[in-house]
Amino acid sequence: MAGNQFGSLFSVTTFGESHGEAIGAIVDGCPAGLPLSDADIQHDLDRRRPGQSSVTTPRKESDTIHVLSGVFNGKTTGAPIGLVIYNENQQSKDYSHLESVFRPGHADYTYTQKYKHRDHRGGGRSSGRETAARVAAGAIAKQWLRQQGIQLQAYTIAVGPFTVTDMDLSVVETNAIRCPNTQQAAEIQAYIEALKEAGDSVGGIVQLRITGMPVGIGEPCFDKLDAVLGHAILSIGTIKGVEFGDGFATARLLGSESNDPLHSNEAGIHTTSNHAGGIVGGLSNGEAIVVNASVKAPSSIQKNQETVTRDGENTTLSVTGRHDPCICPRVGPVLEAMAAIALMDLMLIHSGYPHRE
Amino acid sequence: MAGNQFGSLFSVTTFGESHGEAIGAIVDGCPAGLPLSDADIQHDLDRRRPGQSSVTTPRKESDTIHVLSGVFNGKTTGAPIGLVIYNENQQSKDYSHLESVFRPGHADYTYTQKYKHRDHRGGGRSSGRETAARVAAGAIAKQWLRQQGIQLQAYTIAVGPFTVTDMDLSVVETNAIRCPNTQQAAEIQAYIEALKEAGDSVGGIVQLRITGMPVGIGEPCFDKLDAVLGHAILSIGTIKGVEFGDGFATARLLGSESNDPLHSNEAGIHTTSNHAGGIVGGLSNGEAIVVNASVKAPSSIQKNQETVTRDGENTTLSVTGRHDPCICPRVGPVLEAMAAIALMDLMLIHSGYPHRE
Amino acid sequence: MAGNQFGSLFSVTTFGESHGEAIGAIVDGCPAGLPLSDADIQHDLDRRRPGQSSVTTPRKESDTIHVLSGVFNGKTTGAPIGLVIYNENQQSKDYSHLESVFRPGHADYTYTQKYKHRDHRGGGRSSGRETAARVAAGAIAKQWLRQQGIQLQAYTIAVGPFTVTDMDLSVVETNAIRCPNTQQAAEIQAYIEALKEAGDSVGGIVQLRITGMPVGIGEPCFDKLDAVLGHAILSIGTIKGVEFGDGFATARLLGSESNDPLHSNEAGIHTTSNHAGGIVGGLSNGEAIVVNASVKAPSSIQKNQETVTRDGENTTLSVTGRHDPCICPRVGPVLEAMAAIALMDLMLIHSGYPHRE
Amino acid sequence: MAGNQFGSLFSVTTFGESHGEAIGAIVDGCPAGLPLSDADIQHDLDRRRPGQSSVTTPRKESDTIHVLSGVFNGKTTGAPIGLVIYNENQQSKDYSHLESVFRPGHADYTYTQKYKHRDHRGGGRSSGRETAARVAAGAIAKQWLRQQGIQLQAYTIAVGPFTVTDMDLSVVETNAIRCPNTQQAAEIQAYIEALKEAGDSVGGIVQLRITGMPVGIGEPCFDKLDAVLGHAILSIGTIKGVEFGDGFATARLLGSESNDPLHSNEAGIHTTSNHAGGIVGGLSNGEAIVVNASVKAPSSIQKNQETVTRDGENTTLSVTGRHDPCICPRVGPVLEAMAAIALMDLMLIHSGYPHRE
Repeated sequence: MAGNQFGSLFSVTTFGESHGEAIGAIVDGCPAGLPLSDADIQHDLDRRRPGQSSVTTPRKESDTIHVLSGVFNGKTTGAPIGLVIYNENQQSKDYSHLESVFRPGHADYTYTQKYKHRDHRGGGRSSGRETAARVAAGAIAKQWLRQQGIQLQAYTIAVGPFTVTDMDLSVVETNAIRCPNTQQAAEIQAYIEALKEAGDSVGGIVQLRITGMPVGIGEPCFDKLDAVLGHAILSIGTIKGVEFGDGFATARLLGSESNDPLHSNEAGIHTTSNHAGGIVGGLSNGEAIVVNASVKAPSSIQKNQETVTRDGENTTLSVTGRHDPCICPRVGPVLEAMAAIALMDLMLIHSGYPHRE
Repeated sequence: MAGNQFGSLFSVTTFGESHGEAIGAIVDGCPAGLPLSDADIQHDLDRRRPGQSSVTTPRKESDTIHVLSGVFNGKTTGAPIGLVIYNENQQSKDYSHLESVFRPGHADYTYTQKYKHRDHRGGGRSSGRETAARVAAGAIAKQWLRQQGIQLQAYTIAVGPFTVTDMDLSVVETNAIRCPNTQQAAEIQAYIEALKEAGDSVGGIVQLRITGMPVGIGEPCFDKLDAVLGHAILSIGTIKGVEFGDGFATARLLGSESNDPLHSNEAGIHTTSNHAGGIVGGLSNGEAIVVNASVKAPSSIQKNQETVTRDGENTTLSVTGRHDPCICPRVGPVLEAMAAIALMDLMLIHSGYPHRE
Repeated sequence: MAGNQFGSLFSVTTFGESHGEAIGAIVDGCPAGLPLSDADIQHDLDRRRPGQSSVTTPRKESDTIHVLSGVFNGKTTGAPIGLVIYNENQQSKDYSHLESVFRPGHADYTYTQKYKHRDHRGGGRSSGRETAARVAAGAIAKQWLRQQGIQLQAYTIAVGPFTVTDMDLSVVETNAIRCPNTQQAAEIQAYIEALKEAGDSVGGIVQLRITGMPVGIGEPCFDKLDAVLGHAILSIGTIKGVEFGDGFATARLLGSESNDPLHSNEAGIHTTSNHAGGIVGGLSNGEAIVVNASVKAPSSIQKNQETVTRDGENTTLSVTGRHDPCICPRVGPVLEAMAAIALMDLMLIHSGYPHRE
Repeated sequence: MAGNQFGSLFSVTTFGESHGEAIGAIVDGCPAGLPLSDADIQHDLDRRRPGQSSVTTPRKESDTIHVLSGVFNGKTTGAPIGLVIYNENQQSKDYSHLESVFRPGHADYTYTQKYKHRDHRGGGRSSGRETAARVAAGAIAKQWLRQQGIQLQAYTIAVGPFTVTDMDLSVVETNAIRCPNTQQAAEIQAYIEALKEAGDSVGGIVQLRITGMPVGIGEPCFDKLDAVLGHAILSIGTIKGVEFGDGFATARLLGSESNDPLHSNEAGIHTTSNHAGGIVGGLSNGEAIVVNASVKAPSSIQKNQETVTRDGENTTLSVTGRHDPCICPRVGPVLEAMAAIALMDLMLIHSGYPHRE
């Protein structure tokens, strides 16, 4: 209720600030008997880690996972899984000059109004650093989902003026942009590096694709699959919009264009198009789930900006320090994590109900 | 958890099928002492009611509200408010031919796979009719929010090829489209009437604007204001995308373009632009909240569509009966209701925490 | 969170006041395909109904159940089940003299302090009448549990000076006390009738026995089976204590006396005694669950009592009207209902987790 | 839902096994601005710590608290508080012989049936060691409650054949029994030491007293103050019964005996007796809350007991190792912690509702 927990049967509770001692999570409700190693979790943390390329912040964090409980002899026990990642490169003196001025686009002003007493170091709790805990927890959900035949993959499909075409999902992890087109990835990387040099930043769109879905996952009316996935994804600080299947393009379509025809063959019942993005009536229909998330340009830029001090004086500010010029490449693993957490929860809920004819 | 409840401190639980005896809701957690009459609720039900114009379904329902508890001497008591609306025009024989065939775009196939035993009459629980209960509950939330100086207004800003310009929010309730431009409303109405004649339907975009917001509402990290509003809005069956402020357009912007500068004057601290749509770091910043929702074309069309029977046979289907050719005009009140419920809940949660310096 | 909902996967939300228009509930999360008729619910409502014997209040209520949704062709659909019971015998003028004085033992003073604006008619929301909605909802849980081979039975084992011995559970429903000893039932009935005549009331102990339990139900650490059953039972207004198995007598025992030895035979693993009351480590162990609930004497008595008016004046009060002199016989069905709701919820939760070796 | 979280606005989620790397908790929803030091938490951990006297287990644990987040410059920030306590004295080889045999009274059998894959070392997650995390979290709640003028104190009032009389609460922390009578404490200590020598254990009753309560805390119907406190207390593994005020003795009383008369004077409205234990209609009435908890004799005894192996063979077992002969002295701080967590949550919830006339 204070907002640091997500999920019900499968739940993730997180803690930690950008420049505190550690961040971490408790994962509750992971069924017993799931094979789980530190490496399963570390793999995704490494994909989210700062400093991995020329277009990410140079902050140095190994983001090493410590699993404190819930795993015995290489398998989960059904007990809660305690996860801790120690902060190694806090450099909180970097931020002392920001104690009394509100950075535009950041949560400095709104947090101060809400909580009164605020840890200003690097954004404190409002820092994107908290998403490392989500990624660690999400890696557990992804491990479980994989055993059910479900795969999640996120990749960048737009950055500033670029729109990715001719997508090949097999190359996503081979470039710094996590872009499914190697050539365009290089162009986008050059574009971002130039922006970084200029002290600016840029937004983009990340797409998430989930395959191997069973039919019927989601809990209408209020916990429809798209509603819960939307909640999970919009809870990532940088995301300002989410759409499923044709999404906003649907607004322009006729019913005769946007309905997906059903067809039956030896493989079962499927739709012959996927305008709905794999979700009908709030339930998965077995097709690939396709979600787009709109990603805001990082708010920390070195350009001069008009703003206000904590005492209400107007001033100008240029944010120096270590920042990402485009967060899309690092948002992908977070998107996968949040979607995996939401999806695993809904799948356990579904299995809780022995519906029958 | 089975999906028919939304909210925590302020919660709404609903029941009812399209062609059952009644639909209704229990509103729990409305503070005592709120003036509340049946008319306060009926007003919004009338705005959502079928048969109100040439572009809505002709199904006849008075949608009369019955308040069974929780109000005494014209004020709420803090006890749960029981709400019932009796179905008057079920005509369930209309739907008997749909028992064994899955309508494309509808939840027939996914519900059958999930629940096994399904009330097929008019979509049963998956029908948009359930949103009447949301509107009744939402009217209570809107009444409470109004007392805090908060107003919500939804209106149609796009339909098929039309994009509304030169908006005047004062005319929204004067035309059948709930469009903030009278001239364009007439054009859109004619367009929809022609589509209806042709047995087709169309989608659109509805915008919601919330004014009078205090600063600091929302509960990071997972229950950010945009995440919870997104959940609430995406739980409306017809909606396939949601965006805040500049939303998907943000993907194309630089940080120097999308950050909203802060400015202080005698009226307090404000931003001089509102790209963020009134939400920063997951908390309200006091500016108007602006949300767009992408609305799908209604799935019931008279055009022939390829589909499958319950027994897995391929077939074609043309859906006859009473249907909306464009649901945007009736979605507005539902959008207001869901956003009001979500917002009131977060405001009560915020007031539960006595944060101090 | 406002307290009118219980349960998660299987949840019950209730509404209604003693002298309002109706009371009712929404049951969410009942699996589809459960055979359910009005009679299944009415049976338990009749067991709780006022006016059923010389030792209950003479208030006349048929307590007729109306099932508004969630059942189709005699089976549940997985959709929420709307339940309404109309109040028929409100006589709220009976209570007008109690608007301004606080009845000792009742919630008049505490409700006024909490909610400020209070429906004083017959206790309003704080009346035991709200338990009719619990019984209706509980009947659905009992129906589902019965299909899993689980039975719940509650009966009176003590009233004032009487302690029931030589129990025969087959006679419980044949006497007005719901006592498992016919002879003692008659003595207790005569005792209560005399107290009623004298304008006083009396307490007692009701025992609940649950048989047919599978092993492993409950969710440690905080939602242990006994913790959740205890919550459910203590939420019944009149109950001031709950104990499992040997309960408070355990305080006097040595470990060598209170541990239940395990024994294996062709029927499986069982304990050779049941001091634990069927719950070990917060999980069911397959033995009968045995719970005792301590029931307070009804607070409405015709004896003169010292009390205070709403304006803070000291006064004396004798509560006239229609009241139960001993509530034990009517508490049994409520106890069964609450335990069934709690148990069914925990069983669905358990089935949500596919634990494996 | 998997049972390792308690509370809603103020919530505590715990993790950790007896012989794992660490135990800990995340405390979410603590309002910002609360002064909090490690010492505030360590104080209660020391009161619960093993090895503190001749009547507790000699297991050596410093139980040193590590606060990883949520506190900045000596005050809480409103962000979640991460707490970790490292296990120092696991000696898990002690327990290897217990891998394949079920200890009577312990959760070995029920956990194996539920989770299939079990950490058997020292009871794993089912060990009482998990309560250290509760005590750490509870110390934060107690700190907040103290600032509202609310105090909680637990003490032993019965052990085996002893019933404590002539209570002086000021001496509770001066003896190893946490007994409010120094003379009886000595007798009880000698009794327990003799039992320990004989390889047996014993139960008792611990009483909790909460003073300084405001009126109106609790959320009827289902989250009455006594129901939620009962849930919290019964979730402590060793407790088999809970009663409020006169509790089970109420069963024997007449209404004219158990109703507490109300009286008004310059200090406000109070009751002139406290049979109800400070809770009426599920809400606090401002009087002291008095709760008794029945504590089971520890299950680990050196006496020979009949039991069963994991393979279903009958056998006998004597549990050696380091164990408490009577857990009452160490349960007190756990009882205070759980009651404080439950109470703080209900107080935040209450403050979330701006009820008015």
